[in-house]
Amino acid sequence: MIKRSFIREILDAITPETISFAGGLPDPEGFPAQALAASAARVLAQGKGLQYARTQGDRELRERIAERYRAKGIPTDADEILITTGSQQAITLVSLAHLQEGVLSESPLYLGAKNVFEYFNVPITTFAMTRDGLDLEDLRSKAHSGGWAYLIPDFHNPTGYRYTMKEREEVADILDECGKGLIEDSAYEALYFDAPMPLLFTFLSGRHLHLGSFSKQLAPGLRVGWVRGSRELLAPMIAVKERIDLHTSSLDQAIIADYLAHNDLNAHNETLRHRYKGRMEVLAESLKTYLPQFEFRTPEGGMFIYGSLPGVDASELVKRCMAQGVVFVPGKEFGDTDAGSMRLNFTHADAESTRIGVQRLAKAAGL
Amino acid sequence: MIKRSFIREILDAITPETISFAGGLPDPEGFPAQALAASAARVLAQGKGLQYARTQGDRELRERIAERYRAKGIPTDADEILITTGSQQAITLVSLAHLQEGVLSESPLYLGAKNVFEYFNVPITTFAMTRDGLDLEDLRSKAHSGGWAYLIPDFHNPTGYRYTMKEREEVADILDECGKGLIEDSAYEALYFDAPMPLLFTFLSGRHLHLGSFSKQLAPGLRVGWVRGSRELLAPMIAVKERIDLHTSSLDQAIIADYLAHNDLNAHNETLRHRYKGRMEVLAESLKTYLPQFEFRTPEGGMFIYGSLPGVDASELVKRCMAQGVVFVPGKEFGDTDAGSMRLNFTHADAESTRIGVQRLAKAAGL
Repeated sequence: MIKRSFIREILDAITPETISFAGGLPDPEGFPAQALAASAARVLAQGKGLQYARTQGDRELRERIAERYRAKGIPTDADEILITTGSQQAITLVSLAHLQEGVLSESPLYLGAKNVFEYFNVPITTFAMTRDGLDLEDLRSKAHSGGWAYLIPDFHNPTGYRYTMKEREEVADILDECGKGLIEDSAYEALYFDAPMPLLFTFLSGRHLHLGSFSKQLAPGLRVGWVRGSRELLAPMIAVKERIDLHTSSLDQAIIADYLAHNDLNAHNETLRHRYKGRMEVLAESLKTYLPQFEFRTPEGGMFIYGSLPGVDASELVKRCMAQGVVFVPGKEFGDTDAGSMRLNFTHADAESTRIGVQRLAKAAGL
Repeated sequence: MIKRSFIREILDAITPETISFAGGLPDPEGFPAQALAASAARVLAQGKGLQYARTQGDRELRERIAERYRAKGIPTDADEILITTGSQQAITLVSLAHLQEGVLSESPLYLGAKNVFEYFNVPITTFAMTRDGLDLEDLRSKAHSGGWAYLIPDFHNPTGYRYTMKEREEVADILDECGKGLIEDSAYEALYFDAPMPLLFTFLSGRHLHLGSFSKQLAPGLRVGWVRGSRELLAPMIAVKERIDLHTSSLDQAIIADYLAHNDLNAHNETLRHRYKGRMEVLAESLKTYLPQFEFRTPEGGMFIYGSLPGVDASELVKRCMAQGVVFVPGKEFGDTDAGSMRLNFTHADAESTRIGVQRLAKAAGL
């Protein structure tokens, strides 16, 4: 029997009193609940969202997503978008349709992807990254010809790292040189604190698939993600999706299409970025104050601070933390060999809870 | 590359002018759109339905589903319910978690299940059924010890057949005798025209999983199905579900839980049964009038009339039908060896369209 993921086990175990730095839960106060309720009322009044639908996804929603790419100067047709039941399903579809020969990815590796790759027997090769950057020499030595790379260039999970412009250029060159396709997972792309960077695939000449999600922008309870790619690359993924769930919730799709028609998602994201930057600063300050031994790099966006407590076994620490009413995810869960490494989410807990949570963490660590 | 299913290709090809007897689309006028809109407004006003959620599903929804079993005299705990992204995903989860050794099923075989079994390399053994009944001797000879059977006892797809009480008893005995588990797919269970029959698994002593869905009762656009089973049987399915889509739409789940709290689903289904019985009668009358050569048995519920045009190749006929603006699914798609067999849906087209559709069909057939 396969093991359940540590993060999901933590999510199942937390009580209302637990302060959670685990998971990647958005701040519920950031959900545009009123606007989504207005959209739900509109689409249901129009009789939309209730019938079976096409596997590739709602035409209007795909058109609106394509428009958002075009607004960034990236020509995109609605037929080049496949709607998925969250980004997690997109990783599943890619794995089944394209990755049976294997995948190259960062280490530490995003747990949601690692679990899918392993479950569907996708051979995994990793190259090293830290919270301070990519090991491009390691990438170059591992990037054998053909196949695919799965990368998270914007606010990588768990390290929080964002590829620099120079790294984007060099990574794209390496992939192109060896004819490797790129699967770019941009779940956190909209959550930059200061300025966005161009998507990695725009530097590439070769095959690519771009994974996006409304989970971190709007609300993850509506399970709506998407894949942008050529019709040829999407076709086998659509065939797999038809088999595994027919199509993504028509209602969720209709609500988001209507939301995009009546609201300014960019303005909403701007508010969200401001909110999350503030929360990140509270966590960073709390760590410096109550747990000064914790080594980390201040992230430029995303949802996580990643760092390390030298000389501590984070897997043991998290068990003591659960008893103290605070949780996080040890880096070991992502394949990090640094036993002291840990991932702390800053988007879910409010300022006061964040300060208390870090104090509990320090107490559990005996520091 | 895997082939897309014929039904989904038809759904993609139909225009607003096409009269469709293909697919299994519910009548949109039967959707309780106002009640669902009221539920959507309530749950969003309460801040529900937007956050990440547990993989097994919304506690309140699972509790309400469990209650519906208990109301039928079947003791059920909320922990014995797993919420899935439609019944299609339930078949995927069962296939991956339990069916790697193989599955025994009816022939003709439900296409949605056949496609999943084949895609995930589940060896399939079938026993014969017709629109007039099961071949129990064939079942007995195929039911080797151990493993699982996947059966649709209530208004089988495509044959529309409902197992008799005597067949339920005998099938349960055969499965118990050889220690075979039962996966009972009850997608159409609520759509009986006169009286319900006890679920097949209630006759069984051994292992069983029961698959249910709100798609045919409420609306398929909300992708919400469920599996009822022991904690031990659900555990590996939950682990797979976590990998493939984390969890089913929180919003869809919250809306249905709220709907069940504020409305009488049984009363809604009674209205639906009355509506569908009327539509079935229109299709049956139209067939007798315009296509008297078509041999069929009047169904006792469900969504389909299954029958055969002797001496006709239904796969060729459907191509001519598409040009005439009417579509159906040839029985060959479900593995039926009778070339003239065809499945006609009666829930989607209204009375006038049904009559016109059958006349178009007769014209395309040259009859």
